[in-house]
Amino acid sequence: MTDVHVVGVGMTRFGKHPDSDATDLGAAALLEAVADAGIDPRIIEAAYVGHVFQGMVTGQRILAQVGLAGLPLANVENACSSGATAIREASLAIRAGENDVVVAIGTEHLTTRFSGALTPDPSDPEAAVGATMPGVYAMRATRYMEEYGMTREQLALIPVKNKANAAANPLAHFRKEITVADVLESRPIADPLRLHDCSPITDGAAAVIVMSDTAAKKYANGRGVRLAASTLRSGSVDVEPTSMTYEPLTWATAKEAYEKSGIGPDEVDFAEVHDCFSIAEVLRVEGLGLFEQGSYPWAVERGEANIDGRLPINPSGGLLGKGHPLGGTGVAQVVELVRQLRGEAGDRQIEGVRVGLAHCRGGKAVGIEGAACTVQILIR
Amino acid sequence: MTDVHVVGVGMTRFGKHPDSDATDLGAAALLEAVADAGIDPRIIEAAYVGHVFQGMVTGQRILAQVGLAGLPLANVENACSSGATAIREASLAIRAGENDVVVAIGTEHLTTRFSGALTPDPSDPEAAVGATMPGVYAMRATRYMEEYGMTREQLALIPVKNKANAAANPLAHFRKEITVADVLESRPIADPLRLHDCSPITDGAAAVIVMSDTAAKKYANGRGVRLAASTLRSGSVDVEPTSMTYEPLTWATAKEAYEKSGIGPDEVDFAEVHDCFSIAEVLRVEGLGLFEQGSYPWAVERGEANIDGRLPINPSGGLLGKGHPLGGTGVAQVVELVRQLRGEAGDRQIEGVRVGLAHCRGGKAVGIEGAACTVQILIR
Repeated sequence: MTDVHVVGVGMTRFGKHPDSDATDLGAAALLEAVADAGIDPRIIEAAYVGHVFQGMVTGQRILAQVGLAGLPLANVENACSSGATAIREASLAIRAGENDVVVAIGTEHLTTRFSGALTPDPSDPEAAVGATMPGVYAMRATRYMEEYGMTREQLALIPVKNKANAAANPLAHFRKEITVADVLESRPIADPLRLHDCSPITDGAAAVIVMSDTAAKKYANGRGVRLAASTLRSGSVDVEPTSMTYEPLTWATAKEAYEKSGIGPDEVDFAEVHDCFSIAEVLRVEGLGLFEQGSYPWAVERGEANIDGRLPINPSGGLLGKGHPLGGTGVAQVVELVRQLRGEAGDRQIEGVRVGLAHCRGGKAVGIEGAACTVQILIR
Repeated sequence: MTDVHVVGVGMTRFGKHPDSDATDLGAAALLEAVADAGIDPRIIEAAYVGHVFQGMVTGQRILAQVGLAGLPLANVENACSSGATAIREASLAIRAGENDVVVAIGTEHLTTRFSGALTPDPSDPEAAVGATMPGVYAMRATRYMEEYGMTREQLALIPVKNKANAAANPLAHFRKEITVADVLESRPIADPLRLHDCSPITDGAAAVIVMSDTAAKKYANGRGVRLAASTLRSGSVDVEPTSMTYEPLTWATAKEAYEKSGIGPDEVDFAEVHDCFSIAEVLRVEGLGLFEQGSYPWAVERGEANIDGRLPINPSGGLLGKGHPLGGTGVAQVVELVRQLRGEAGDRQIEGVRVGLAHCRGGKAVGIEGAACTVQILIR
């Protein structure tokens, strides 16, 4: 069976785009990925488009806008893992022998969907009594502090790091470095989390072109990066019992990716992880087995997760710094992985990287219903 | 590469379900498919869930409700082809060797989403000036009458046929036979279409379990039906120019299915097609190459499309009679195909069928943006 290669990548600036919509953004990302791959766009055979709140047949509109209407296309939704799921489904179409060249797009125009923060669905009884996303992550932060002795100042180092990375990323939503004091003095959201602990409402899109061995041989010109694993899991009571400080769902999804790729967590050179809140980055890197349970805040303090550290985390700026256009996020992570692995990441380039990992987790923060987790491993 | 087999099927009653939601309906359909397959549900490895208006992570909620949370799952959306797309993606996961047993579910609780008719998206400028779904199909009906001389009475024979079939289907939304006079005297919707020419706002869900050769050998007990082709296309200006009375998109999608299955249109024994309006059935069966262009109304008059006719169309009652819960529709079509092919269709059983075809078309009725078309061919 064929391997899957990421050959072209593109993404829009993340931020507020009052003059365009999710279709425009998706089309722009797609065209950039085509240009990056250096291909005739007419060789693209199929498309998968991930988004959450953009309504019916958004993907078809994107294709029509760029003159690629007519392709087989599925819109996919998996909450914050929607974009990553689009990549996974694209990779399955390749592996099934159905297609040789497939584009996966993630897009979201979130500023027109929510005026302030992301509002929970009115049918969600837990959110109605306060278990909103910030509420749940605030509880998880409190519990982590209690269990492992993490201080509020240590937690603040995560947005400080990610916004420093974002400042070096011309496509990031936020381009300004911040200090621990900035985090601690920012507006309270859900105690102990403050504004700088939370990812923003962002518009943006990203696209990647994936190819079979045959197509990559013909078109990649040595610029392809192998998608060694792309795994997807939903939350369940078996893998996700009552712990607030450990994510068995993240581990189950990662374990499968490690097995499929033959890459262990100790071989991962850097990662983009789903830091929807500062505490989320802690839970994710530990759940992925990249850092020991209860150790990450101290590792961040020692600079280990910096771009020049032992194991850089979220060099793009992550969700906290680069921004979080739900559907766009998972695809943008893979764009960052490819740019880093090709040595094209500019001021935020990590030296000598060969293996990158991307992790998304969407849906409910705790509990069995509605969570979707993805892990993708790319090898140069 | 493995073939794909439909081994278990289930569906809820279609109609109004005020006491349940899309999750409940999806779960009920899934459990019935499991029972029909006679399998331990724990052998299911992955899920695809098609719906349009049910919000975030609906599929994950369905799995959680039946104790199957944790599986890889993607929610897919392709307008009225959403359910059919879920089956296609499930078949790709099988063919990619990723899974051996996958469930595809389609669900929609439409009565809680629209109080009256389906309301166009406010961002759709064509709908805003009157090119709503009934408006566009009314124009197509008028044009077809002009081009081929079809009478209003002939057109009425299609809802008469489909509601007669639905009367024999215990799961159909409508269980009452109607006459041509009933159609002609029903409330005008968009001239010349009247209420009985339009599919209703329906709640409902359906599920099919698909398997690889290996799994089917082990679990199918001779009850498997081969999914010989499952094709998907979006609309484009190339395949869909200006004709109001012919559907090149339907033909392009069907042609690929005929090629992949090695089955020609003349070998199809019966079909479930997307009769969202009476005229739509005409356009679909002619677009599929099952009847000659401009001939179907006369064929219906001669009884050729009846259950005891030469080529029965919509034996389930179709969208007009069985109902049209968007995401549920494409999966329910395949449920009907399987029941007919197994000889388990009760009072509406077609004699001696071996090859069935299902066709969905979603999104815009005319024009290049946003249409999605699927064709599936099943062989016993």
